[in-house]
Amino acid sequence: MKTHSSSKKSLDGKYVESDLPLLIQRRGMAVWEDGIVKILDRRKLPNQVDFIVCKTSEDVAVAIENMAIQGAFSISIAAGYGLALSLKNNCSISDLNKASARLISTRPTGMALKKVITYCQKTAIDAMDNNLCPASAVIELTSKVASDLAKQAQKTAQNAISLLKDGDTILTHCFPDRSYVYLLVEAKRRNIDLKIICSETRPYLQGTKLTAFCSSSLGFKTKVISDGMGGALMQQGLINAFITAADRVCMDGTVANKIGTYQYALAARENKVPYYVLRQSGPDLGSNDSNAIEIEERDGDELTMIDKKNIAPKNVQGFYPAFDVTPSNLVTRIITDRGIFMANQIKSYFDNDSFIADSLL
Amino acid sequence: MKTHSSSKKSLDGKYVESDLPLLIQRRGMAVWEDGIVKILDRRKLPNQVDFIVCKTSEDVAVAIENMAIQGAFSISIAAGYGLALSLKNNCSISDLNKASARLISTRPTGMALKKVITYCQKTAIDAMDNNLCPASAVIELTSKVASDLAKQAQKTAQNAISLLKDGDTILTHCFPDRSYVYLLVEAKRRNIDLKIICSETRPYLQGTKLTAFCSSSLGFKTKVISDGMGGALMQQGLINAFITAADRVCMDGTVANKIGTYQYALAARENKVPYYVLRQSGPDLGSNDSNAIEIEERDGDELTMIDKKNIAPKNVQGFYPAFDVTPSNLVTRIITDRGIFMANQIKSYFDNDSFIADSLL
Repeated sequence: MKTHSSSKKSLDGKYVESDLPLLIQRRGMAVWEDGIVKILDRRKLPNQVDFIVCKTSEDVAVAIENMAIQGAFSISIAAGYGLALSLKNNCSISDLNKASARLISTRPTGMALKKVITYCQKTAIDAMDNNLCPASAVIELTSKVASDLAKQAQKTAQNAISLLKDGDTILTHCFPDRSYVYLLVEAKRRNIDLKIICSETRPYLQGTKLTAFCSSSLGFKTKVISDGMGGALMQQGLINAFITAADRVCMDGTVANKIGTYQYALAARENKVPYYVLRQSGPDLGSNDSNAIEIEERDGDELTMIDKKNIAPKNVQGFYPAFDVTPSNLVTRIITDRGIFMANQIKSYFDNDSFIADSLL
Repeated sequence: MKTHSSSKKSLDGKYVESDLPLLIQRRGMAVWEDGIVKILDRRKLPNQVDFIVCKTSEDVAVAIENMAIQGAFSISIAAGYGLALSLKNNCSISDLNKASARLISTRPTGMALKKVITYCQKTAIDAMDNNLCPASAVIELTSKVASDLAKQAQKTAQNAISLLKDGDTILTHCFPDRSYVYLLVEAKRRNIDLKIICSETRPYLQGTKLTAFCSSSLGFKTKVISDGMGGALMQQGLINAFITAADRVCMDGTVANKIGTYQYALAARENKVPYYVLRQSGPDLGSNDSNAIEIEERDGDELTMIDKKNIAPKNVQGFYPAFDVTPSNLVTRIITDRGIFMANQIKSYFDNDSFIADSLL
């Protein structure tokens, strides 16, 4: 017999929380819990399920910066709750603005974080103006965003499933976030058997630690490869579809995603492998084209240090731009919560109504 | 004042041994020393300069298999001396054949190993037939091969240097072997300043541990990137040339090299970055095209184990084909000891005379 907690509905409103892979459960990203924010430390997966307890918005900012949590959408949830932490003790507007700016500065390439924090900030000020509790207002808003994101992801997966068939082998790069995990959940429900190949995605190895973790926990046959291998596997006809998320999609269909995506997209086009981008909430209205994208450059030491040991020779630095930019002509389709689009037609996303009222993202 | 040993001429006959980066010194590959074979353990570089002492040909086979030494040419030297170890104690022809087969089986993709062992085997039998010491004959032959390889590499570098100019940024993948190191030596001698970007080359990280080690020890500004990054850097115009070695070149110009090369070659063509293959001894006469190439599949654990810890989730395997195949139309030039060739004209390599008498490779 299921306990009450294990039969709890998940954020998407459809599935039972405990039936979902950990990374798309509530505790798989960030949760507000009695005045603290608990963040699952993704760096320690799959061997350890460990939570970072954040007491201040600075703690949350550091957790995001240090990759304890990642993914354009997941970090925006953590940041929203993080902002609520700054509001606990009679916070001034200037403190609020400072905390907002700090949280936004953590990762510049995805836009969800900035949007969520900007709305949260506004919501907090409105609440102050109306003598309501700003922290509660921000928590409520963030929780709605978390739930909307899950519903959008689930809808995106329902749209994307039509592109896959039984027996397909899927190549992924990095962790393609909630929409991809829901796609696997959807495939399992429909008895569509997939073979999964995860590009490990150095230096943080999200492919091995996160993506492979989700697909194997759902029972799909899963292998990991190095980031140099995907092209050769496509050339050999071993891949039926290349699928990633996107940290940002521009209005012209340009895709910003974890670095490594671009060269796989080139290999996909060369070898007639479709490249599908899962981008639940469509393009960013403020980003016309690649000129709008700021590529985050992370510390080169993240490449040259392994297990706290420097593996590089003296005087050799790592170089770590975290994202790359794939032009729309390399993208076969962008799959969203509002349907499937040709990449260069993605701006028509906004011609379709949102199925979620007041959706922020 | 230089000591006698530090002014010793190197294998190439031109440079002073101690002026060269460790990896192209004699001790940088494998040396015969009083009845043992000493192999520099490349896996421990750059932090430790450690030698494996091999007393049997099986010891050498294991060192090659386990990547203590790598590179199509370097392993052939180790294997030649390894075969000599099997001849120390009244070895029968059947033992010799067994040791030869074992050494050849270690790495199937490069052809130099097979060629050297086949010649060594024949030389040993000839020596036995003529009442000469077969071990000495094999050691002598292997030492000549080692010296020929160094001379060819140095010549290849002299040919290649015309393709580079002061200020160029070079992207490499894996360790492009002796010819590349001589190219850097040549550049330094001519005051051609290069910036070097090494793709780290998971899982063994030869890019970080070997290639960056050589270029930084020569004073070139060197950075390492992950194997997903090279394409994006080419797209951004940051790379002036992509350079690799080749484990095998077919008569039609197809190039087999460390996996990851193919997708970089695609990105190079897309972004008009020249892709130069350093292949000192030209194509393999027995390999017409890609059908002749056997791709070695190594143990998937080499990807999922880091520092003896399994980083992959339960039921997830690594998949590690060690090489990939780049068609000739993606290769700008193949540079050899006998000149520079269009990839699809590489068979005319054999229209040119060797500058080394009786060269085996």
